[in-house]
Amino acid sequence: MIGVFDSGIGGLTVVRALRERLPGHDIIYLGDTARTPYGSKSAETIIRYSLNNTEFLLKKGARTIVIACNTVSSYAFDAVREQFKIPVFEVIGPGAQLAVERSRRSRIGVIGTRATIASGVYEQTIKRLLPGATVYAAACPLLVPLVEEGWINKPETAMIVRKYIHPLKTRQIDTLILGCTHYPVLSEVIQRKMGPQVVLVDSARAIADRVGGHIGKTLEGTAVAEKKGSLTVYVTDVAEQFRKTAHLILGHCLPIQHADL
Amino acid sequence: MIGVFDSGIGGLTVVRALRERLPGHDIIYLGDTARTPYGSKSAETIIRYSLNNTEFLLKKGARTIVIACNTVSSYAFDAVREQFKIPVFEVIGPGAQLAVERSRRSRIGVIGTRATIASGVYEQTIKRLLPGATVYAAACPLLVPLVEEGWINKPETAMIVRKYIHPLKTRQIDTLILGCTHYPVLSEVIQRKMGPQVVLVDSARAIADRVGGHIGKTLEGTAVAEKKGSLTVYVTDVAEQFRKTAHLILGHCLPIQHADL
Repeated sequence: MIGVFDSGIGGLTVVRALRERLPGHDIIYLGDTARTPYGSKSAETIIRYSLNNTEFLLKKGARTIVIACNTVSSYAFDAVREQFKIPVFEVIGPGAQLAVERSRRSRIGVIGTRATIASGVYEQTIKRLLPGATVYAAACPLLVPLVEEGWINKPETAMIVRKYIHPLKTRQIDTLILGCTHYPVLSEVIQRKMGPQVVLVDSARAIADRVGGHIGKTLEGTAVAEKKGSLTVYVTDVAEQFRKTAHLILGHCLPIQHADL
Repeated sequence: MIGVFDSGIGGLTVVRALRERLPGHDIIYLGDTARTPYGSKSAETIIRYSLNNTEFLLKKGARTIVIACNTVSSYAFDAVREQFKIPVFEVIGPGAQLAVERSRRSRIGVIGTRATIASGVYEQTIKRLLPGATVYAAACPLLVPLVEEGWINKPETAMIVRKYIHPLKTRQIDTLILGCTHYPVLSEVIQRKMGPQVVLVDSARAIADRVGGHIGKTLEGTAVAEKKGSLTVYVTDVAEQFRKTAHLILGHCLPIQHADL
C-alpha cells in the first residue's frame, strides 16, 4: 500500500497521477487540512507535522511513503527518511530531472510557495543535474488559496498568475516547473499567460513516474493484480470546501474520513 | 493582564484598538499561526484549538480573555466561557450592536470568512437586537490570505473586494460590518468600492470599546496606572511574513516569541 500525504488537498494531483500510472495499487491519502497551509510555516513546524503524518500512514498499513507536497519535500524529506526505515519519495528530484530533460536552452523557471522558493531546493537540485543551467524562481503564495477556493477560471486568478510569472517571462525561460502540487489545477491559465513556447513541468506527474518506475522494478516477475486499487482519503479537518476541491481535482466524489493526529 | 488570541495575525487589529482604549493595561497576545487559518475548518477543530489557546494565556497570567477572531467567536465562545471561570469577550456582539446603532434604514451587510458567514451568527445577533433588520452576508475567504501577503493596495485586491461586495451593493445596504479582524486593514479599499454612503463598522474597535467599558467599571475608584502597558506577542509558528504583517498592522516592530502548544 502506498501512503501519500500533503499539507492539504493539493497532493490529490499526485494521487490522480499515481492512479493513472499504478492502477492496481492501493493508496491511502492523508491531507493535513487542520494545519494547512504549511507553505508559510517555519522549517521546525513543517518537520514536526510531517513526522506525525508519516506515523499515521504507517499505522494504517502503508509500506511506501510519497510526500506529495513540495514544501514538505524541501524541509522534511531527510527527517522522514531517517526516522522511518521504508522507501520515501519526494517531489523535487523528479520534477527537476524532468525539467532538465525538457529544457532546450537551460533557462528554467520554478514557481512554488514562499517556503519552497526560500529553501532554494529546486535551484540546487537543477544545478546538480545540469551545472550550466540558469534558474529563476518566483514565490506565488496566493495560488494555493485561489485553488482551494476553486477560483480556477476567474479573471482575478489570471491577473494574479500574470503578475507572479511576469519576472520569469521577461527572463525568457523555456521551461517552467509547477513546484507546488496545487498548481497543476491552474496549468491552463499558467500556460496561457506564459505563452506556448514555454514547456510546463508538472511535478505531480513526475513523482508518479518515479514511484511507478521503482515499484515496477520491485514487482518484476510477480503477478500484477488485475483488480483496481482502492483509494482511502483521510483529512485532519473535514470541511465542506475540501469535498468540493477534491471533486474538482479527482473528477469524482469519494468518501472522506477524519484522522485525529 | 488582558489575554487576546486569534487564529493568526488579524487579531492584532484588536490589540491596536485595545491599546488606544486602555493604554495602561498589559496585554498578552497569542496568534495561532501554526494552525491558521481557522476560517475554513470545522466547528470541533475550532473549539479544540480555542481551548488550547485560552489555557496558554491563563498560564501566562491573563485574567481576562478577548477572542479577537470572528470565526472563533461564532463557534467557540460558549465552550471557552463554560470551561474557564473568567471574563471572556467575543467580537460578534459588540460589532452587531454598533451596526444596529449606526444603521439608518436597517439594511445591514456583513462580510467574513466562510466559517463565520456559514454560522449565521451575525444575522441572529442583529435580529435579536433589531427584529426588523434585513441582513445580507457574504463570505470573502480570499481576503485573509491577501492581507497576510500584505497586498493592501494592489489592483487585484481591489477587484476581488469589488467581486465579493457586489451582491451587498446591489441590495443597497447602508451599513457594512467588517466581520473578520483582518478586514480593517482593507477598510480603505472596501469603503471605496462600497461607496461613501455606506457606514463601515470595524469589529476590532467595537470589541475594544466593550472591553474598555467593562474594565473601566471594574476599576472605578482604584488608581489608574500612569505607566504605559506592556505588549507581549506569542505565535505558534514564527515565520518572517508574520513580522512584516504585524509591523503593517501595529505600525512598529516588536519582539515575537514562540509558543509551543
